[in-house]
Amino acid sequence: MAQLNSKIHEVIVTTLSQTGEPHSAPMGITEVNGHFLIQPFKPSATYENLKHHRQCTINYTDDVRVFAGSLTGRRDWPTLPCQKIEGQYLEQALSHTELEVIDFVDGDPRTSFTGKIVHEQTHAPFRGFNRAQSAVIEAAVLTSRLSMLPAEKVQQEIAYLTIAIEKTAGERELEAWSWLMTKIKDAGIELQNV
Amino acid sequence: MAQLNSKIHEVIVTTLSQTGEPHSAPMGITEVNGHFLIQPFKPSATYENLKHHRQCTINYTDDVRVFAGSLTGRRDWPTLPCQKIEGQYLEQALSHTELEVIDFVDGDPRTSFTGKIVHEQTHAPFRGFNRAQSAVIEAAVLTSRLSMLPAEKVQQEIAYLTIAIEKTAGERELEAWSWLMTKIKDAGIELQNV
Repeated sequence: MAQLNSKIHEVIVTTLSQTGEPHSAPMGITEVNGHFLIQPFKPSATYENLKHHRQCTINYTDDVRVFAGSLTGRRDWPTLPCQKIEGQYLEQALSHTELEVIDFVDGDPRTSFTGKIVHEQTHAPFRGFNRAQSAVIEAAVLTSRLSMLPAEKVQQEIAYLTIAIEKTAGERELEAWSWLMTKIKDAGIELQNV
Repeated sequence: MAQLNSKIHEVIVTTLSQTGEPHSAPMGITEVNGHFLIQPFKPSATYENLKHHRQCTINYTDDVRVFAGSLTGRRDWPTLPCQKIEGQYLEQALSHTELEVIDFVDGDPRTSFTGKIVHEQTHAPFRGFNRAQSAVIEAAVLTSRLSMLPAEKVQQEIAYLTIAIEKTAGERELEAWSWLMTKIKDAGIELQNV
């Protein structure tokens, strides 16, 4: 089983490029002793941006289109200026945390940045679990690994996840799901009824 | 595919018994034109309580132990008094909504109560998706249907869900997961490595 305290939160990390452009990317982060660990792969825009500008935003959003969009070329989500750091946060965030990088270990294939909380803000209440949102997150993880997986495994998992989509999705979830299904089909994997 | 606007939120509904005791139960609710639809099965404590006392609380919590606990005889979660209705809300809620029942359709096997929002309060920020939390919710749905499912299907789904538990769970998720696995094993279904 998993070790204790290894809990991973699926969030959107927004960094700034050298020209000040916000870049938002889905990432699995962990909290360790009140600090956040962000571990982007190399090469990646998040890695480059964090090495250059040691501040970033963690966005907690239930809008799964941002996760699915990042895998399907839809990265242009509106942002707003942060309060205490030079940065931007997602307009769709239910809450966000502004971080200052206080340490990093430059590894391969991932670098581990440790962020200290500078500021936190809540914008809208959590509305409970939605099984379709979880299904989109799982399908996004699957879609990011298409090249490593046999088609049959992808087909089986999508068939399973489709049940929660059909039973519990709202408009945002259906839109995000359709983007991912198009990407999977474009990769040459046949899907039924989606 | 699902119809638009049928989005289902997995929440904890807290009602009061005729003697004023709070009763918390997991439920899938929907939002329709700014009102909430709560549809408990009959017979159930939630149904009886709502018919008698036309107020209740919707608790939005990411503590999946409350969901798993409800299926495994652990219902005694601490509550606090509501602000605008006679009721209680869960101490673990990230946010809660206080409702007044304005209409109901007494059907079979479910009754549909329509609730009007009287008050809302946010207590703590959403911390992003956690795949292990989603896996516990799926396992809870599965556990509630054990008597209707072939053992092989349960074994397959648990094997799939175990991956997210092993990779992303924190302490609360591991505890909730262990309760559900014990219940499944107690039902005579063999599970490997859990």
